[in-house]
Amino acid sequence: MTGLSQDRSITLSVDAMGGDQGPAVVAAGVSKFLSSDPAAQVLLHGQREILEPLFAGSDVAARVKIVHATGVVAMTDKPSNVMRSGKATSMWSAVDALRDRRADACVSCGNTGALMAVSMIRLRKAEGVNRPAIACLWPSRNPNGFNVMLDVGADIRADQDDLLAYAMMGASYARNGLGLKRPRVGLLNVGTEEHKGRAELKVASDMIASAADKGDFDYVGFVEGGDIPSARVDVIVTDGFTGNVALKTGEGTATLISGLLREAFLSSIASKVAALLTRGAWPVLKSRIDPRQVNGGVFLGLGGLVVKSHGSADATGVCAALSLAARLARSDFSERLAHRIAGVSALHQDTPKEIEA
Amino acid sequence: MTGLSQDRSITLSVDAMGGDQGPAVVAAGVSKFLSSDPAAQVLLHGQREILEPLFAGSDVAARVKIVHATGVVAMTDKPSNVMRSGKATSMWSAVDALRDRRADACVSCGNTGALMAVSMIRLRKAEGVNRPAIACLWPSRNPNGFNVMLDVGADIRADQDDLLAYAMMGASYARNGLGLKRPRVGLLNVGTEEHKGRAELKVASDMIASAADKGDFDYVGFVEGGDIPSARVDVIVTDGFTGNVALKTGEGTATLISGLLREAFLSSIASKVAALLTRGAWPVLKSRIDPRQVNGGVFLGLGGLVVKSHGSADATGVCAALSLAARLARSDFSERLAHRIAGVSALHQDTPKEIEA
Repeated sequence: MTGLSQDRSITLSVDAMGGDQGPAVVAAGVSKFLSSDPAAQVLLHGQREILEPLFAGSDVAARVKIVHATGVVAMTDKPSNVMRSGKATSMWSAVDALRDRRADACVSCGNTGALMAVSMIRLRKAEGVNRPAIACLWPSRNPNGFNVMLDVGADIRADQDDLLAYAMMGASYARNGLGLKRPRVGLLNVGTEEHKGRAELKVASDMIASAADKGDFDYVGFVEGGDIPSARVDVIVTDGFTGNVALKTGEGTATLISGLLREAFLSSIASKVAALLTRGAWPVLKSRIDPRQVNGGVFLGLGGLVVKSHGSADATGVCAALSLAARLARSDFSERLAHRIAGVSALHQDTPKEIEA
Repeated sequence: MTGLSQDRSITLSVDAMGGDQGPAVVAAGVSKFLSSDPAAQVLLHGQREILEPLFAGSDVAARVKIVHATGVVAMTDKPSNVMRSGKATSMWSAVDALRDRRADACVSCGNTGALMAVSMIRLRKAEGVNRPAIACLWPSRNPNGFNVMLDVGADIRADQDDLLAYAMMGASYARNGLGLKRPRVGLLNVGTEEHKGRAELKVASDMIASAADKGDFDYVGFVEGGDIPSARVDVIVTDGFTGNVALKTGEGTATLISGLLREAFLSSIASKVAALLTRGAWPVLKSRIDPRQVNGGVFLGLGGLVVKSHGSADATGVCAALSLAARLARSDFSERLAHRIAGVSALHQDTPKEIEA
């Protein structure tokens, strides 16, 4: 990804509770991240009696400040309930640290809907954004190895204005997260011909095309599901229902294939020998398609930077989400994005630092 | 798949033109299919002067009857134009042979939208069906290796009544195409909890649950994108926009991974040796995820059996689509489905023959 230096001190606000794997895995991810990023500090929100022992004697303990919070948001909790009565939870506490500017970004492995709901009421939506979106990185054929797709599940619907905002936000994310100067944006549809698809997509397509210069991106028009991992496009724009189904379908397909591969390699002695011979090749492949390496859905369109780590992420996955949050925080991504969306920006102001330099 | 015998004579009506690969590839697929199915005959529609030489001296020539048609539907033709002025095309001719009962099923590699449009006006919709659907087979963890998903692109929208009809039709297809006595049906959504997703999906979910006994299937409730290739479900119901995006995303992901695999195996001498050692394992894997083996979108809800082969199918792919059409034609699938949907059927009447036996 981008080559921003780690010398700038940053603080991440991390919700230690609520993931599928429990706080010990989050703590292991935090340790891994802090070992790799000497200028970073973490505010860790959750039950002190559980969290403190996890860092006893650790090299990084001095850079972890535990913020006690008794409540835990469960994966099954309804977002509306958490909004009403979730003030004592670790999630709320983690978001509030960002709101109060005690941290530069917030990361949670918890309930996605609740995290978005709490983020919306505590951080507010950015000016000019009606529906915030969640953007993910998708393994692709592009030189840097990834494409951006949004929305992958913040909202189940999006009208043409939302899709235009997603295009602007996605382009800004690709610039700051992937270091692309002028990202290529495509709108997901069931065909690339102009007459295909829903009527609102045609309207959105025209609007995005008109905004390309102001948004500093190239619009490639409609793209199809098969283009998501391709080198035809850098940013794929869609509504949160379609994007969520596509994301999970892609993950499910990758899981099916790797399971079948594993079985194929265990099917004979010859193939077991082959598996040994190719053990150098696997890490390369795995690093390209391992969902843990691209863990972290970024919430776009809020008054602060929130990253959602996968609920079932292991320490490697949590570390990847924290590293992504740190990288984006150091690029002042949220501020650049907010200026861009609000339309008060001069052109190029969200050009990332490493491109300017 | 099912073990229906090939002793029953059947005739397939095949559109030889309009695919991406040209008529020679379709002819090669027809030859391959006829060699494997001695009781089958083919009506091959297209330009006689092109098609006749392709079967000169062939063993199967006696079972191929060429039906001359001058026009060709291009992949870029608008369906509405083909409906108005496509009477002289090979596609129209192929569908009409089915309509006139000169054939038991129709197969085309051509323009999907045009094929659906021509099929709708020539074959009419089955009683009780508002929107016909396209069903595909999806490689899965189930014992028979496949799940059914629909709609994957007949229509870009579906209301609750359509989704209910898709559940009935998909269950019937799974019974007759995959030999499952009581298929498990799931409705695609962005989460499995009841409160998730669009309002119309909740209504559809209740309707499908109520129809499970009449439709002779088990309803498993909402499923997510990751469940499509899983063993949790046999039939995945969704609208044609979402289904088409999911299908193409799955294909794109499989293509990305196999490309990266190939590169990993060519990255060193050791891995090249490994590739040789595992050459026995690859066909097993490939037969599970090779899209050519599961080629053939079945049009459901029409007054006749139409199978759409992938536009870029090679001879193996065309043969797979023809074999699928032959298998379904021999099971009297269309008639069973029509009775089931029209609600005039007694229970179990679409139990496939091999289960009854």
